[in-house]
Amino acid sequence: MTTVDRLPKQDRSRATRQRLLEAAVACLAERGWAGSTVAVVAERAGVSRGAAQHHFPTREDLFTAAVEYVAEERSQALRALFPEGAQGADRRAVVAALVDLYTGPLFRAALHLWVAASNEEQLGPRVTELEARVGRETHRIAVDLLAADETRPGVRETVQGLLDMARGLGLANLLTDDRTRRDRVVTQWADLLDAALGQDPS
Amino acid sequence: MTTVDRLPKQDRSRATRQRLLEAAVACLAERGWAGSTVAVVAERAGVSRGAAQHHFPTREDLFTAAVEYVAEERSQALRALFPEGAQGADRRAVVAALVDLYTGPLFRAALHLWVAASNEEQLGPRVTELEARVGRETHRIAVDLLAADETRPGVRETVQGLLDMARGLGLANLLTDDRTRRDRVVTQWADLLDAALGQDPS
Repeated sequence: MTTVDRLPKQDRSRATRQRLLEAAVACLAERGWAGSTVAVVAERAGVSRGAAQHHFPTREDLFTAAVEYVAEERSQALRALFPEGAQGADRRAVVAALVDLYTGPLFRAALHLWVAASNEEQLGPRVTELEARVGRETHRIAVDLLAADETRPGVRETVQGLLDMARGLGLANLLTDDRTRRDRVVTQWADLLDAALGQDPS
Repeated sequence: MTTVDRLPKQDRSRATRQRLLEAAVACLAERGWAGSTVAVVAERAGVSRGAAQHHFPTREDLFTAAVEYVAEERSQALRALFPEGAQGADRRAVVAALVDLYTGPLFRAALHLWVAASNEEQLGPRVTELEARVGRETHRIAVDLLAADETRPGVRETVQGLLDMARGLGLANLLTDDRTRRDRVVTQWADLLDAALGQDPS
């Protein structure tokens, strides 16, 4: 018996679901949309294809749920990095952490889903809606942790541009390890941001 | 007889090549890497498959050449927009034009190629090399048109971050028309950039 088998039925179902979601993100990051099917993910998660289809009736269900699940995990982890919120955080560290959101397997997976959605009718509206939701949440976190006062003119757009830059840095990291250059850009833009947002909260 | 048939042989060959390159970029932008084969592009360009393979022996040859060709066209068009260089340009207009590089069919095509290259061994090194080359050229143009003095500390990273932001804005435009938000971000960051780069050249 595996650990999962010993759990009560409801917990077992939740654990299976979670294994599928994590396998789906890993699969998408490594093999792209074309190589990512429910069958491949089920095998990777050690779950029967029937069980996978019980949780996620369609391929689109599985992969959009997977990207959303991991995005939520990452949002929580980001907030947990700065438990005191803007009070305890210096802006360079916050900018670096925001940029980190876009350099791991989640971003690779999301990017594959995003690009596939631009050509696939069944995926398009769902991914658009998902990205809008994840984007709003990331913006909220950024505003909180940067102690950005969005009632001041231009502050909202300053934060948006920062997150666009973070996404662009993620893209630049797709084919090569861009860490050295990225660190320098982060340092410089954190300074620009500090000047733009006014008083550093730390 | 078509117009192409009336040209001398060398010009005809050049015209065929150009038709193939333009068809390849359009195909990549609309159908993604999975839907883009030499046969599909040849048909779209009205060229025989044999002629297409004479110009581009492999699928990788065709699509990397296509993205490079269109990137060069766009670089030239960007310089042509500001014929007097940094002297005649206001920075808001330059930032907007740089961001525009990443919102059209070329960026969509390049993005598909980029994402495919992250999972395909045959494509990876070639696209990496191509992106580095195109990226350096875009950086050079940006530095020129912004009259950015890279001998000053932080200026190089400021310009790099701006181009990362432009790429991120392109990504945000992939699934939805993001123009309204983008214009506001461009206006705001053009102001921040102006302050960071010092004296406006215009």
